[in-house]
Amino acid sequence: MKLATFSSDGQMLWGAVADDGVIALSPDFPQWKTLRQVIEADALGTVLAAAEGRSPTHKNGAFRWEIPIPDPEKIICVGVNFPDRNAEYKDGQEAPPNMSLFIRFPRSFVGHETPLTRPPETPQLDYEGEIAIVIGKGGRRIAERSALSHIAALTLCNEGTLRDWVRHAKFNVTQGKNWDGSGAMGPWLVPYRGPDQIADIQLQTRVNGELRQDDRTGRMLFPVARQIAYISTFTTLVPGDIIVTGTPTGAGARFDPPRYLIPGDTVEVAAQGIGVLRNGVVDE
Amino acid sequence: MKLATFSSDGQMLWGAVADDGVIALSPDFPQWKTLRQVIEADALGTVLAAAEGRSPTHKNGAFRWEIPIPDPEKIICVGVNFPDRNAEYKDGQEAPPNMSLFIRFPRSFVGHETPLTRPPETPQLDYEGEIAIVIGKGGRRIAERSALSHIAALTLCNEGTLRDWVRHAKFNVTQGKNWDGSGAMGPWLVPYRGPDQIADIQLQTRVNGELRQDDRTGRMLFPVARQIAYISTFTTLVPGDIIVTGTPTGAGARFDPPRYLIPGDTVEVAAQGIGVLRNGVVDE
Repeated sequence: MKLATFSSDGQMLWGAVADDGVIALSPDFPQWKTLRQVIEADALGTVLAAAEGRSPTHKNGAFRWEIPIPDPEKIICVGVNFPDRNAEYKDGQEAPPNMSLFIRFPRSFVGHETPLTRPPETPQLDYEGEIAIVIGKGGRRIAERSALSHIAALTLCNEGTLRDWVRHAKFNVTQGKNWDGSGAMGPWLVPYRGPDQIADIQLQTRVNGELRQDDRTGRMLFPVARQIAYISTFTTLVPGDIIVTGTPTGAGARFDPPRYLIPGDTVEVAAQGIGVLRNGVVDE
Repeated sequence: MKLATFSSDGQMLWGAVADDGVIALSPDFPQWKTLRQVIEADALGTVLAAAEGRSPTHKNGAFRWEIPIPDPEKIICVGVNFPDRNAEYKDGQEAPPNMSLFIRFPRSFVGHETPLTRPPETPQLDYEGEIAIVIGKGGRRIAERSALSHIAALTLCNEGTLRDWVRHAKFNVTQGKNWDGSGAMGPWLVPYRGPDQIADIQLQTRVNGELRQDDRTGRMLFPVARQIAYISTFTTLVPGDIIVTGTPTGAGARFDPPRYLIPGDTVEVAAQGIGVLRNGVVDE
Protein backbone atom coordinates (compact mmCIF):
# COMPACT_ATOMS: atom_id res chain seq x y z
CA MET A 1 0.00 0.00 0.00
CA LYS A 2 1.32 3.43 -0.98
CA LEU A 3 0.56 7.01 0.03
CA ALA A 4 0.53 10.07 -2.20
CA THR A 5 -0.02 13.79 -2.21
CA PHE A 6 -2.18 15.07 -5.04
CA SER A 7 -4.35 17.99 -6.01
CA SER A 8 -7.78 18.31 -7.51
CA ASP A 9 -9.80 21.44 -8.21
CA GLY A 10 -6.97 23.48 -6.74
CA GLN A 11 -7.12 21.64 -3.43
CA MET A 12 -4.10 19.79 -2.01
CA LEU A 13 -4.96 16.36 -0.61
CA TRP A 14 -3.16 13.27 0.58
CA GLY A 15 -4.28 9.70 0.61
CA ALA A 16 -3.69 6.11 -0.47
CA VAL A 17 -2.94 4.85 -3.95
CA ALA A 18 -5.18 2.25 -5.60
CA ASP A 19 -4.85 0.64 -9.06
CA ASP A 20 -7.33 2.91 -10.75
CA GLY A 21 -6.96 6.10 -8.72
CA VAL A 22 -6.35 7.55 -5.29
CA ILE A 23 -8.34 7.44 -2.06
CA ALA A 24 -8.35 10.87 -0.41
CA LEU A 25 -7.73 10.40 3.32
CA SER A 26 -6.77 13.93 4.37
CA PRO A 27 -10.44 14.97 4.82
CA ASP A 28 -10.73 12.23 7.49
CA PHE A 29 -7.61 13.41 9.34
CA PRO A 30 -7.78 17.20 9.51
CA GLN A 31 -5.17 17.19 12.29
CA TRP A 32 -2.53 16.24 9.70
CA LYS A 33 -2.33 18.73 6.86
CA THR A 34 0.47 16.99 4.97
CA LEU A 35 2.15 13.58 4.88
CA ARG A 36 5.01 15.15 6.80
CA GLN A 37 2.62 15.64 9.69
CA VAL A 38 1.35 12.06 9.35
CA ILE A 39 4.95 10.86 9.60
CA GLU A 40 5.65 13.17 12.56
CA ALA A 41 2.69 11.56 14.31
CA ASP A 42 4.05 8.10 13.44
CA ALA A 43 0.65 7.45 11.86
CA LEU A 44 1.43 5.91 8.46
CA GLY A 45 -0.10 2.64 9.69
CA THR A 46 -3.20 4.39 11.01
CA VAL A 47 -3.96 6.15 7.76
CA LEU A 48 -3.22 3.09 5.62
CA ALA A 49 -5.63 1.07 7.76
CA ALA A 50 -8.29 3.71 7.12
CA ALA A 51 -7.92 3.13 3.39
CA GLU A 52 -8.60 -0.62 3.58
CA GLY A 53 -11.45 -1.75 1.36
CA ARG A 54 -12.24 1.73 0.07
CA SER A 55 -12.71 2.69 -3.56
CA PRO A 56 -10.87 5.57 -5.19
CA THR A 57 -12.28 9.00 -4.50
CA HIS A 58 -10.39 10.32 -7.54
CA LYS A 59 -9.99 8.13 -10.61
CA ASN A 60 -6.78 8.26 -12.62
CA GLY A 61 -6.86 11.36 -14.80
CA ALA A 62 -9.03 13.29 -12.34
CA PHE A 63 -6.19 14.49 -10.13
CA ARG A 64 -2.63 15.77 -10.37
CA TRP A 65 0.29 14.10 -8.60
CA GLU A 66 2.21 16.44 -6.29
CA ILE A 67 5.56 15.84 -4.63
CA PRO A 68 4.86 13.45 -1.73
CA ILE A 69 6.15 15.70 1.08
CA PRO A 70 5.40 19.30 0.05
CA ASP A 71 6.85 20.87 3.21
CA PRO A 72 10.01 19.06 4.32
CA GLU A 73 12.35 20.92 6.65
CA LYS A 74 15.24 19.78 4.46
CA ILE A 75 15.99 18.02 1.21
CA ILE A 76 19.62 16.87 1.26
CA CYS A 77 21.13 15.34 -1.87
CA VAL A 78 24.16 13.04 -1.99
CA GLY A 79 26.51 13.51 -4.96
CA VAL A 80 29.08 11.23 -6.61
CA ASN A 81 27.80 8.05 -4.92
CA PHE A 82 28.09 5.27 -7.53
CA PRO A 83 31.20 3.60 -8.96
CA ASP A 84 32.63 5.40 -11.98
CA ARG A 85 30.78 8.61 -11.14
CA ASN A 86 33.98 10.10 -9.74
CA ALA A 87 35.86 9.02 -12.89
CA GLU A 88 33.21 10.78 -15.00
CA TYR A 89 34.55 14.09 -13.74
CA LYS A 90 37.92 13.34 -15.44
CA ASP A 91 39.79 15.63 -13.05
CA GLY A 92 42.32 13.04 -11.95
CA GLN A 93 41.19 13.24 -8.34
CA GLU A 94 40.90 10.24 -6.08
CA ALA A 95 37.49 9.16 -4.87
CA PRO A 96 36.56 11.51 -2.01
CA PRO A 97 36.72 10.31 1.60
CA ASN A 98 33.26 11.68 2.38
CA MET A 99 30.05 12.13 0.48
CA SER A 100 29.33 15.39 -1.30
CA LEU A 101 26.11 17.01 -0.09
CA PHE A 102 23.95 19.75 -1.51
CA ILE A 103 20.52 21.13 -0.83
CA ARG A 104 17.46 21.45 -3.04
CA PHE A 105 14.32 23.41 -2.34
CA PRO A 106 10.92 21.73 -2.75
CA ARG A 107 10.02 24.20 -5.50
CA SER A 108 12.75 22.71 -7.68
CA PHE A 109 10.60 19.56 -8.00
CA VAL A 110 7.32 18.72 -9.70
CA GLY A 111 5.21 15.63 -9.07
CA HIS A 112 4.78 12.51 -11.19
CA GLU A 113 3.52 13.16 -14.72
CA THR A 114 4.00 16.93 -14.58
CA PRO A 115 6.62 17.91 -17.17
CA LEU A 116 10.04 19.17 -16.15
CA THR A 117 10.69 22.79 -17.16
CA ARG A 118 13.55 23.74 -19.46
CA PRO A 119 14.21 27.45 -18.87
CA PRO A 120 15.11 29.90 -21.63
CA GLU A 121 18.48 30.64 -19.99
CA THR A 122 20.10 27.30 -20.87
CA PRO A 123 19.42 24.19 -22.98
CA GLN A 124 21.43 21.94 -20.63
CA LEU A 125 18.57 20.28 -18.71
CA ASP A 126 19.73 16.84 -17.60
CA TYR A 127 18.22 13.89 -15.71
CA GLU A 128 19.55 12.02 -12.69
CA GLY A 129 17.53 9.05 -11.48
CA GLU A 130 17.72 8.48 -7.73
CA ILE A 131 16.06 6.82 -4.78
CA ALA A 132 14.96 9.15 -1.98
CA ILE A 133 14.33 8.21 1.62
CA VAL A 134 12.01 10.01 4.01
CA ILE A 135 13.03 10.23 7.65
CA GLY A 136 10.51 8.94 10.18
CA LYS A 137 12.16 9.05 13.57
CA GLY A 138 14.44 12.07 13.85
CA GLY A 139 17.73 12.29 15.67
CA ARG A 140 21.25 13.63 15.91
CA ARG A 141 24.41 11.52 15.62
CA ILE A 142 22.40 8.46 14.64
CA ALA A 143 24.54 5.31 14.75
CA GLU A 144 25.06 3.66 11.37
CA ARG A 145 23.96 0.27 12.70
CA SER A 146 20.53 1.56 13.69
CA ALA A 147 20.20 4.21 10.97
CA LEU A 148 17.81 2.36 8.67
CA SER A 149 15.22 2.20 11.44
CA HIS A 150 14.92 6.00 11.12
CA ILE A 151 13.41 5.66 7.62
CA ALA A 152 9.66 6.08 7.27
CA ALA A 153 9.27 5.65 3.53
CA LEU A 154 10.91 5.48 0.11
CA THR A 155 10.22 7.40 -3.07
CA LEU A 156 11.91 8.25 -6.38
CA CYS A 157 13.59 11.39 -7.60
CA ASN A 158 14.61 12.76 -10.95
CA GLU A 159 17.25 15.11 -9.66
CA GLY A 160 17.05 17.30 -12.77
CA THR A 161 20.03 19.59 -13.23
CA LEU A 162 20.98 22.56 -15.41
CA ARG A 163 24.55 21.48 -16.16
CA ASP A 164 26.23 24.75 -17.05
CA TRP A 165 24.75 26.45 -13.99
CA VAL A 166 26.26 23.76 -11.74
CA ARG A 167 29.68 25.13 -12.69
CA HIS A 168 28.80 28.82 -12.64
CA ALA A 169 30.84 29.68 -9.59
CA LYS A 170 33.95 28.71 -7.69
CA PHE A 171 32.24 26.37 -5.24
CA ASN A 172 28.92 24.60 -4.91
CA VAL A 173 26.31 23.34 -7.30
CA THR A 174 23.39 25.22 -5.71
CA GLN A 175 22.25 27.24 -8.71
CA GLY A 176 22.37 24.33 -11.19
CA LYS A 177 20.30 22.18 -8.83
CA ASN A 178 17.53 24.57 -7.88
CA TRP A 179 15.74 25.77 -10.97
CA ASP A 180 12.02 25.88 -10.34
CA GLY A 181 10.38 22.71 -11.64
CA SER A 182 13.60 21.26 -13.04
CA GLY A 183 13.34 17.93 -11.19
CA ALA A 184 10.65 15.56 -10.01
CA MET A 185 9.78 13.53 -6.95
CA GLY A 186 7.26 10.72 -6.48
CA PRO A 187 5.01 9.22 -7.57
CA TRP A 188 4.26 8.15 -4.01
CA LEU A 189 5.66 7.02 -0.68
CA VAL A 190 6.26 3.32 -0.10
CA PRO A 191 6.29 2.72 3.67
CA TYR A 192 9.60 1.30 4.86
CA ARG A 193 9.41 -2.17 6.36
CA GLY A 194 12.98 -3.44 6.35
CA PRO A 195 16.51 -3.27 4.86
CA ASP A 196 15.70 -5.59 1.94
CA GLN A 197 13.72 -2.75 0.38
CA ILE A 198 16.86 -0.72 -0.29
CA ALA A 199 19.93 -2.90 0.36
CA ASP A 200 20.44 -4.00 -3.24
CA ILE A 201 17.65 -2.96 -5.58
CA GLN A 202 17.90 -2.06 -9.24
CA LEU A 203 17.66 1.62 -10.19
CA GLN A 204 17.15 2.56 -13.85
CA THR A 205 16.52 5.70 -15.85
CA ARG A 206 15.06 5.66 -19.35
CA VAL A 207 14.68 8.53 -21.80
CA ASN A 208 12.05 7.89 -24.47
CA GLY A 209 12.31 4.21 -23.57
CA GLU A 210 16.10 4.03 -24.00
CA LEU A 211 18.01 2.79 -20.97
CA ARG A 212 20.48 5.48 -19.83
CA GLN A 213 21.22 4.68 -16.20
CA ASP A 214 21.24 1.18 -14.70
CA ASP A 215 22.81 0.23 -11.41
CA ARG A 216 22.05 -1.32 -8.03
CA THR A 217 21.93 0.32 -4.62
CA GLY A 218 24.27 -2.39 -3.32
CA ARG A 219 27.04 -0.62 -5.24
CA MET A 220 26.65 2.77 -3.55
CA LEU A 221 29.96 4.20 -2.33
CA PHE A 222 28.14 5.59 0.70
CA PRO A 223 25.20 3.31 1.55
CA VAL A 224 21.98 4.80 2.93
CA ALA A 225 22.74 3.87 6.56
CA ARG A 226 26.07 5.70 6.29
CA GLN A 227 24.34 8.73 4.75
CA ILE A 228 21.94 9.00 7.69
CA ALA A 229 24.76 8.60 10.20
CA TYR A 230 27.02 11.15 8.49
CA ILE A 231 24.37 13.81 7.87
CA SER A 232 22.99 13.54 11.39
CA THR A 233 26.48 14.18 12.75
CA PHE A 234 26.10 17.88 11.97
CA THR A 235 22.34 18.49 11.65
CA THR A 236 19.37 17.12 13.54
CA LEU A 237 17.21 15.07 11.21
CA VAL A 238 13.47 15.51 11.75
CA PRO A 239 10.44 13.59 10.49
CA GLY A 240 9.76 14.31 6.84
CA ASP A 241 13.35 15.20 5.97
CA ILE A 242 14.33 13.78 2.61
CA ILE A 243 17.70 12.36 1.58
CA VAL A 244 18.20 11.93 -2.16
CA THR A 245 20.71 9.11 -2.23
CA GLY A 246 22.76 9.57 -5.41
CA THR A 247 22.62 8.76 -9.12
CA PRO A 248 24.42 6.10 -11.21
CA THR A 249 26.58 6.87 -14.25
CA GLY A 250 24.86 7.71 -17.51
CA ALA A 251 23.39 11.20 -17.18
CA GLY A 252 23.08 13.06 -20.46
CA ALA A 253 26.10 15.28 -19.76
CA ARG A 254 28.37 12.20 -19.78
CA PHE A 255 27.75 11.39 -23.45
CA ASP A 256 29.96 12.86 -26.18
CA PRO A 257 28.30 14.95 -27.44
CA PRO A 258 26.03 15.46 -24.42
CA ARG A 259 22.43 14.33 -24.72
CA TYR A 260 20.40 16.91 -22.86
CA LEU A 261 16.63 16.73 -22.47
CA ILE A 262 14.48 18.51 -25.03
CA PRO A 263 10.78 19.33 -25.11
CA GLY A 264 8.73 16.22 -25.88
CA ASP A 265 11.14 13.82 -24.15
CA THR A 266 9.85 11.42 -21.51
CA VAL A 267 12.05 10.45 -18.59
CA GLU A 268 11.29 7.45 -16.40
CA VAL A 269 13.07 6.67 -13.14
CA ALA A 270 12.30 3.15 -11.94
CA ALA A 271 13.33 1.15 -8.89
CA GLN A 272 12.31 -2.29 -7.76
CA GLY A 273 9.53 -2.23 -5.21
CA ILE A 274 9.06 1.52 -5.41
CA GLY A 275 7.61 2.20 -8.85
CA VAL A 276 8.17 4.40 -11.89
CA LEU A 277 8.42 8.20 -11.81
CA ARG A 278 7.54 9.54 -15.25
CA ASN A 279 7.86 13.13 -16.52
CA GLY A 280 7.79 14.88 -19.82
CA VAL A 281 9.80 17.97 -20.68
CA VAL A 282 8.47 21.37 -21.77
CA ASP A 283 10.01 24.70 -22.55
CA GLU A 284 9.09 27.42 -20.09
CA MET B 1 12.18 51.14 15.04
CA LYS B 2 13.17 47.47 14.92
CA LEU B 3 11.35 44.15 15.13
CA ALA B 4 12.51 40.99 16.82
CA THR B 5 11.55 37.42 17.54
CA PHE B 6 12.11 36.29 21.12
CA SER B 7 11.01 33.71 23.62
CA SER B 8 9.91 33.84 27.20
CA ASP B 9 8.66 31.03 29.43
CA GLY B 10 9.00 28.67 26.49
CA GLN B 11 6.71 30.76 24.32
CA MET B 12 7.82 32.20 20.97
CA LEU B 13 6.80 35.83 20.46
CA TRP B 14 7.56 38.66 18.09
CA GLY B 15 7.40 42.37 18.65
CA ALA B 16 9.19 45.71 18.60
CA VAL B 17 12.50 46.56 20.19
CA ALA B 18 12.78 49.37 22.77
CA ASP B 19 15.86 50.62 24.61
CA ASP B 20 15.22 48.65 27.77
CA GLY B 21 13.38 45.60 26.43
CA VAL B 22 10.92 44.35 23.86
CA ILE B 23 7.24 45.03 23.26
CA ALA B 24 5.41 41.80 22.48
CA LEU B 25 3.07 42.44 19.54
CA SER B 26 2.27 38.91 18.41
CA PRO B 27 -0.56 38.52 20.98
CA ASP B 28 -2.30 41.46 19.26
CA PHE B 29 -1.92 39.95 15.79
CA PRO B 30 -2.81 36.25 16.10
CA GLN B 31 -3.26 36.05 12.32
CA TRP B 32 0.53 36.35 11.90
CA LYS B 33 2.40 33.65 13.81
CA THR B 34 5.87 34.75 12.76
CA LEU B 35 7.57 37.82 11.29
CA ARG B 36 7.66 35.94 7.99
CA GLN B 37 3.87 36.10 7.97
CA VAL B 38 3.93 39.79 8.88
CA ILE B 39 6.21 40.38 5.89
CA GLU B 40 4.02 38.23 3.62
CA ALA B 41 1.09 40.45 4.62
CA ASP B 42 3.20 43.55 3.88
CA ALA B 43 2.37 44.62 7.44
CA LEU B 44 5.68 45.76 8.93
CA GLY B 45 4.32 49.32 9.04
CA THR B 46 1.08 48.20 10.68
CA VAL B 47 2.76 46.35 13.49
CA LEU B 48 5.35 49.07 14.09
CA ALA B 49 2.55 51.62 14.38
CA ALA B 50 0.93 49.41 17.00
CA ALA B 51 4.09 49.64 19.10
CA GLU B 52 4.14 53.45 19.21
CA GLY B 53 4.21 54.86 22.72
CA ARG B 54 4.12 51.47 24.41
CA SER B 55 6.42 50.32 27.21
CA PRO B 56 8.33 47.04 27.07
CA THR B 57 6.34 43.95 27.94
CA HIS B 58 9.62 42.11 28.59
CA LYS B 59 12.56 43.96 30.11
CA ASN B 60 16.10 43.15 28.99
CA GLY B 61 17.18 39.93 30.70
CA ALA B 62 13.63 38.60 30.89
CA PHE B 63 13.55 37.13 27.40
CA ARG B 64 15.76 35.28 24.96
CA TRP B 65 16.53 36.57 21.47
CA GLU B 66 15.60 34.13 18.70
CA ILE B 67 16.55 34.29 15.03
CA PRO B 68 14.31 36.98 13.50
CA ILE B 69 12.63 34.77 10.87
CA PRO B 70 12.33 31.28 12.38
CA ASP B 71 10.59 29.74 9.36
CA PRO B 72 12.05 31.07 6.10
CA GLU B 73 11.46 29.05 2.97
CA LYS B 74 15.11 29.52 2.10
CA ILE B 75 18.35 30.89 3.49
CA ILE B 76 20.78 31.41 0.62
CA CYS B 77 24.37 32.43 1.38
CA VAL B 78 26.75 34.16 -1.00
CA GLY B 79 30.39 33.09 -0.83
CA VAL B 80 33.65 34.79 -1.87
CA ASN B 81 32.08 38.23 -2.26
CA PHE B 82 34.71 40.72 -1.00
CA PRO B 83 38.05 41.73 -2.54
CA ASP B 84 40.95 39.48 -1.51
CA ARG B 85 38.59 36.70 -0.41
CA ASN B 86 39.30 34.80 -3.63
CA ALA B 87 43.05 35.27 -3.08
CA GLU B 88 42.67 33.85 0.44
CA TYR B 89 42.00 30.44 -1.11
CA LYS B 90 45.53 30.46 -2.61
CA ASP B 91 44.51 28.06 -5.38
CA GLY B 92 45.74 30.25 -8.23
CA GLN B 93 42.26 30.52 -9.70
CA GLU B 94 40.89 33.72 -11.19
CA ALA B 95 38.02 35.46 -9.51
CA PRO B 96 34.85 33.58 -10.50
CA PRO B 97 32.43 35.04 -13.04
CA ASN B 98 29.42 34.33 -10.84
CA MET B 99 28.75 34.29 -7.14
CA SER B 100 29.10 31.06 -5.19
CA LEU B 101 25.89 30.09 -3.42
CA PHE B 102 25.15 27.64 -0.64
CA ILE B 103 22.23 26.92 1.62
CA ARG B 104 21.92 26.93 5.38
CA PHE B 105 19.10 25.57 7.47
CA PRO B 106 17.54 27.76 10.18
CA ARG B 107 18.66 25.27 12.85
CA SER B 108 22.27 26.11 12.07
CA PHE B 109 21.68 29.54 13.66
CA VAL B 110 21.02 30.78 17.18
CA GLY B 111 19.73 34.21 18.16
CA HIS B 112 21.59 37.19 19.61
CA GLU B 113 23.36 36.48 22.91
CA THR B 114 22.93 32.71 22.73
CA PRO B 115 26.39 31.12 22.50
CA LEU B 116 27.57 29.39 19.35
CA THR B 117 28.14 25.66 19.79
CA ARG B 118 31.53 24.07 19.17
CA PRO B 119 30.88 20.35 18.57
CA PRO B 120 33.15 17.58 19.87
CA GLU B 121 33.92 16.42 16.31
CA THR B 122 36.15 19.38 15.40
CA PRO B 123 37.82 22.38 17.03
CA GLN B 124 37.68 24.43 13.82
CA LEU B 125 34.71 26.70 14.63
CA ASP B 126 35.17 29.97 12.76
CA TYR B 127 33.27 33.25 12.46
CA GLU B 128 32.13 35.11 9.35
CA GLY B 129 30.41 38.46 9.87
CA GLU B 130 27.80 39.28 7.25
CA ILE B 131 24.78 41.41 6.47
CA ALA B 132 21.59 39.52 5.67
CA ILE B 133 18.62 40.83 3.74
CA VAL B 134 15.05 39.63 4.09
CA ILE B 135 12.90 39.53 0.98
CA GLY B 136 9.60 41.40 1.16
CA LYS B 137 8.06 41.26 -2.28
CA GLY B 138 8.80 37.94 -3.97
CA GLY B 139 9.46 37.32 -7.62
CA ARG B 140 11.26 35.46 -10.35
CA ARG B 141 13.82 36.99 -12.72
CA ILE B 142 13.80 40.25 -10.81
CA ALA B 143 15.58 43.00 -12.74
CA GLU B 144 18.75 44.28 -11.06
CA ARG B 145 17.62 47.90 -11.35
CA SER B 146 14.47 47.26 -9.29
CA ALA B 147 15.89 44.51 -7.08
CA LEU B 148 16.44 46.55 -3.92
CA SER B 149 12.73 47.36 -3.76
CA HIS B 150 12.17 43.64 -3.03
CA ILE B 151 13.91 43.95 0.36
CA ALA B 152 11.74 44.12 3.47
CA ALA B 153 14.41 44.32 6.15
CA LEU B 154 18.06 43.96 7.11
CA THR B 155 19.71 41.92 9.82
CA LEU B 156 23.15 40.57 10.75
CA CYS B 157 24.61 37.10 10.51
CA ASN B 158 27.57 35.34 12.02
CA GLU B 159 27.87 32.69 9.36
CA GLY B 160 29.74 30.32 11.69
CA THR B 161 31.59 27.55 9.90
CA LEU B 162 33.35 24.31 10.82
CA ARG B 163 36.35 24.72 8.53
CA ASP B 164 37.56 21.16 8.08
CA TRP B 165 34.02 19.96 7.36
CA VAL B 166 33.70 22.53 4.54
CA ARG B 167 36.35 20.56 2.65
CA HIS B 168 35.15 17.08 3.58
CA ALA B 169 34.02 16.09 0.12
CA LYS B 170 34.69 16.65 -3.55
CA PHE B 171 32.13 19.41 -3.97
CA ASN B 172 30.08 21.76 -1.84
CA VAL B 173 30.44 23.27 1.59
CA THR B 174 27.08 22.03 2.92
CA GLN B 175 28.30 20.02 5.88
CA GLY B 176 30.72 22.65 7.18
CA LYS B 177 28.00 25.30 7.05
CA ASN B 178 25.13 23.48 8.71
CA TRP B 179 26.16 22.35 12.18
CA ASP B 180 23.30 22.91 14.59
CA GLY B 181 23.77 26.20 16.43
CA SER B 182 27.11 26.99 14.78
CA GLY B 183 26.10 30.44 13.54
CA ALA B 184 23.88 33.31 14.63
CA MET B 185 21.36 35.69 13.14
CA GLY B 186 19.89 38.91 14.54
CA PRO B 187 19.54 40.68 16.84
CA TRP B 188 16.54 42.12 15.02
CA LEU B 189 15.08 43.26 11.72
CA VAL B 190 15.64 46.83 10.60
CA PRO B 191 12.90 47.72 8.09
CA TYR B 192 14.33 48.64 4.70
CA ARG B 193 13.64 52.21 3.62
CA GLY B 194 16.13 52.86 0.81
CA PRO B 195 19.44 52.00 -0.89
CA ASP B 196 21.53 54.19 1.44
CA GLN B 197 20.98 51.60 4.16
CA ILE B 198 23.14 49.04 2.37
CA ALA B 199 24.95 50.72 -0.54
CA ASP B 200 28.18 51.45 1.32
CA ILE B 201 28.01 50.70 5.02
CA GLN B 202 30.79 49.48 7.26
CA LEU B 203 30.76 45.85 8.36
CA GLN B 204 33.05 44.72 11.18
CA THR B 205 33.65 41.58 13.21
CA ARG B 206 35.39 41.60 16.57
CA VAL B 207 36.54 38.64 18.67
CA ASN B 208 37.00 39.50 22.34
CA GLY B 209 37.09 43.14 21.27
CA GLU B 210 39.83 42.66 18.66
CA LEU B 211 38.94 43.80 15.16
CA ARG B 212 39.21 40.85 12.76
CA GLN B 213 37.05 41.79 9.78
CA ASP B 214 36.50 45.32 8.52
CA ASP B 215 35.16 46.25 5.14
CA ARG B 216 32.38 48.17 3.40
CA THR B 217 29.45 46.84 1.41
CA GLY B 218 30.40 49.21 -1.40
CA ARG B 219 33.31 46.87 -2.14
CA MET B 220 31.20 43.73 -2.68
CA LEU B 221 32.13 41.88 -5.86
CA PHE B 222 28.45 41.04 -6.33
CA PRO B 223 26.33 43.83 -4.83
CA VAL B 224 23.01 43.01 -3.18
CA ALA B 225 20.90 44.07 -6.17
CA ARG B 226 22.90 41.72 -8.37
CA GLN B 227 22.46 38.90 -5.83
CA ILE B 228 18.68 39.26 -5.90
CA ALA B 229 18.63 39.38 -9.70
CA TYR B 230 20.93 36.36 -10.11
CA ILE B 231 19.29 34.14 -7.50
CA SER B 232 15.80 34.90 -8.75
CA THR B 233 16.85 33.80 -12.23
CA PHE B 234 16.59 30.17 -11.14
CA THR B 235 14.37 30.16 -8.05
CA THR B 236 11.29 32.14 -7.11
CA LEU B 237 12.03 34.34 -4.13
CA VAL B 238 9.19 34.57 -1.61
CA PRO B 239 8.55 36.87 1.36
CA GLY B 240 10.75 35.98 4.30
CA ASP B 241 13.53 34.44 2.21
CA ILE B 242 16.95 35.43 3.52
CA ILE B 243 20.07 36.18 1.52
CA VAL B 244 23.30 36.24 3.54
CA THR B 245 25.40 38.57 1.46
CA GLY B 246 29.03 37.54 2.02
CA THR B 247 31.89 38.08 4.45
CA PRO B 248 35.04 40.25 4.23
CA THR B 249 38.57 38.88 4.62
CA GLY B 250 39.84 38.10 8.10
CA ALA B 251 38.08 34.94 9.26
CA GLY B 252 40.07 32.90 11.78
CA ALA B 253 41.09 30.28 9.21
CA ARG B 254 43.03 32.93 7.26
CA PHE B 255 45.55 33.54 10.04
CA ASP B 256 48.77 31.53 10.27
CA PRO B 257 48.34 29.66 12.50
CA PRO B 258 44.52 29.76 12.30
CA ARG B 259 42.67 31.44 15.13
CA TYR B 260 39.54 29.38 15.67
CA LEU B 261 36.91 30.21 18.25
CA ILE B 262 37.19 28.62 21.67
CA PRO B 263 34.79 28.44 24.61
CA GLY B 264 34.59 31.75 26.40
CA ASP B 265 35.21 33.85 23.29
CA THR B 266 32.78 36.63 22.38
CA VAL B 267 32.12 37.44 18.73
CA GLU B 268 30.49 40.69 17.66
CA VAL B 269 29.27 41.42 14.14
CA ALA B 270 28.46 45.09 13.68
CA ALA B 271 27.12 47.11 10.77
CA GLN B 272 26.20 50.77 10.54
CA GLY B 273 22.50 51.36 11.00
CA ILE B 274 21.74 47.73 11.77
CA GLY B 275 23.32 47.05 15.15
CA VAL B 276 25.60 44.55 16.87
CA LEU B 277 25.07 40.78 16.91
CA ARG B 278 26.90 39.33 19.92
CA ASN B 279 27.45 35.67 20.77
CA GLY B 280 29.63 33.70 23.11
CA VAL B 281 31.04 30.26 22.37
CA VAL B 282 30.46 27.06 24.34
CA ASP B 283 31.47 23.46 23.93
CA GLU B 284 28.58 21.15 23.24
